[in-house]
Amino acid sequence: MSNKPPLNSREKTKSLLIKLQEKICNNLEKIDGKGKFIEETWLRPEGGGGKSRVLKHGNIFEQAGVNFSEVYGKELPESIISQRPEAKGHDWFATGTSLVLHPKNPYIPTVHLNYRYFEAGPVWWFGGGADLTPYYPYLSDAIHFHQEHRKACQKIDPNLHTVFKPWCDEYFYLKHRKESRGIGGIFYDYQDGTGNLYKGNKKKGQAYEISKSIGELKLSWDSLFSLAENCGNAFLPAYEPIIHKRMNQIYSEKEREFQLYRRGRYVEFNLVWDRGTIFGLQTNGRTESILMSLPPLARWEYGFKAKDNSREDLLTKIFTKPQDWLNDKDLEQYCKERNIFE
Amino acid sequence: MSNKPPLNSREKTKSLLIKLQEKICNNLEKIDGKGKFIEETWLRPEGGGGKSRVLKHGNIFEQAGVNFSEVYGKELPESIISQRPEAKGHDWFATGTSLVLHPKNPYIPTVHLNYRYFEAGPVWWFGGGADLTPYYPYLSDAIHFHQEHRKACQKIDPNLHTVFKPWCDEYFYLKHRKESRGIGGIFYDYQDGTGNLYKGNKKKGQAYEISKSIGELKLSWDSLFSLAENCGNAFLPAYEPIIHKRMNQIYSEKEREFQLYRRGRYVEFNLVWDRGTIFGLQTNGRTESILMSLPPLARWEYGFKAKDNSREDLLTKIFTKPQDWLNDKDLEQYCKERNIFE
Repeated sequence: MSNKPPLNSREKTKSLLIKLQEKICNNLEKIDGKGKFIEETWLRPEGGGGKSRVLKHGNIFEQAGVNFSEVYGKELPESIISQRPEAKGHDWFATGTSLVLHPKNPYIPTVHLNYRYFEAGPVWWFGGGADLTPYYPYLSDAIHFHQEHRKACQKIDPNLHTVFKPWCDEYFYLKHRKESRGIGGIFYDYQDGTGNLYKGNKKKGQAYEISKSIGELKLSWDSLFSLAENCGNAFLPAYEPIIHKRMNQIYSEKEREFQLYRRGRYVEFNLVWDRGTIFGLQTNGRTESILMSLPPLARWEYGFKAKDNSREDLLTKIFTKPQDWLNDKDLEQYCKERNIFE
Repeated sequence: MSNKPPLNSREKTKSLLIKLQEKICNNLEKIDGKGKFIEETWLRPEGGGGKSRVLKHGNIFEQAGVNFSEVYGKELPESIISQRPEAKGHDWFATGTSLVLHPKNPYIPTVHLNYRYFEAGPVWWFGGGADLTPYYPYLSDAIHFHQEHRKACQKIDPNLHTVFKPWCDEYFYLKHRKESRGIGGIFYDYQDGTGNLYKGNKKKGQAYEISKSIGELKLSWDSLFSLAENCGNAFLPAYEPIIHKRMNQIYSEKEREFQLYRRGRYVEFNLVWDRGTIFGLQTNGRTESILMSLPPLARWEYGFKAKDNSREDLLTKIFTKPQDWLNDKDLEQYCKERNIFE
């Protein structure tokens, strides 16, 4: 098992991630049945470029944005160097695919995916993940999304999911609201195969504790490449069945209003807490591509509080808190009793 | 001229600022003719509290939020200590009034005001300002708003406005969009009467250069108190005539859509760049009061570009760039020729 990238590492990851964009977009167009992706390619003055694909005003998707980029430069920004000091003074290369889908129907959750790969002199690493943000609570949707991502991780190693799941909960957290962005999924960063699964993250939460208890887990470049491949390929099977299950549920102005209100939280997370977004905006990234993640319409309402035990209240109390979706039998019972399982 | 606050400095500033909230709210209710302010008082666990007043769904105002707060604590946060090291290790006191008004009619600009006063051991300072964010371009509105604030500053010293106007342009700037939030107004901070008008701000732009060229300008506590009073009292005369001028202009879905789109920029500024908002959210402030500044509804549209020379285009090109609104005769000519003067 080698800890070195293959000679064609850049070509290989780039090709993986651009094909992922391609495959996902083709499938989303089929699912939507009306909307078409408009493509824009762009060059980054400092090196590299990307391909942004956006579908607007579809049958299913109010907006779907899928970005691919491949960029390079002389010196990584300080925020990354502080996490990976070995990268200092080296040319770097980064490639990634990311997406955010904002469906029209409030019963279909918003979803986010991002997989990326970095090289800088002697160091390289993989990062990524996917997370789901429902507007109405259905435990079976949360279970399905997590199951598919667990399966993808377990093809590489049974320990990965136990770390990447809580890591996702910790990353997609709105401290000022004491809420998670949604029901989570998986998240990982700085995976360079050198042993410590939780490398590079300073927050010593649950993911850190679990990672410590596992001890060293050396993964080859090829395994981490396969992890990105498996997880990327898990996206459609994890999300598409939820669309089909929810797309014909009739909604009224009330559900739409709550969706727009919760989309406000999505904006708050992305602009206040998301390292990638803030970093991009503050360092001359391509603003329109970075902000493709923002919803086409969002709402704020001072002092809003849902009625006790309403679905809106349960969404906020149960589905914006980290939960053990796959194993918590009490949660299952709780949701069944309140008709928010199926 | 003494550089010491009077013995009743806290009572005096608190009373000034709470009366400002009161007066403005009373007048806004009269102007609106329908909406009423709902008041919530709140306590801050670490010391002090405030009074948040919100008017929703009015005739004129889609949302109007006016906050007063008076808070104290043991040690100021690092972000302020780095600017005022003399405050380190001292108990502190802060009081302030702030507002953001989001009118329904896209022809009426959004407006923001904030005046505040700090004490921490041996140091004290005043800060504040007001700025206007139009959705449709009318040079006469920009001129009026600036004139009223210039008058208020000039009652204290003719030099103040020449620094506070560019300071406002520099503060309310969206670097990632290369746009100002709107047409500006005035902004000042760390005014402690010790001489340097531009104290405490690290950005060495135009405001810094002008301040340097003026040299020392020692102002007494009483003068700076009067400055806050004058500027606070300038708010209604600066804004109300613009409401009356625009409130009966008929708008269609197109203007409403552009307003919602531009409100997205307001959200971006407040969540990405506004020091006060970010600081509040990251340090356990009262989230609902802090985010009262966000619009009730906002829109994002990937790749939006207004038609060349449309009013939407002129707003973006001319009214989101720093301009010498009060003295630029070419600008006046330009706006008259394009029917965006009156």
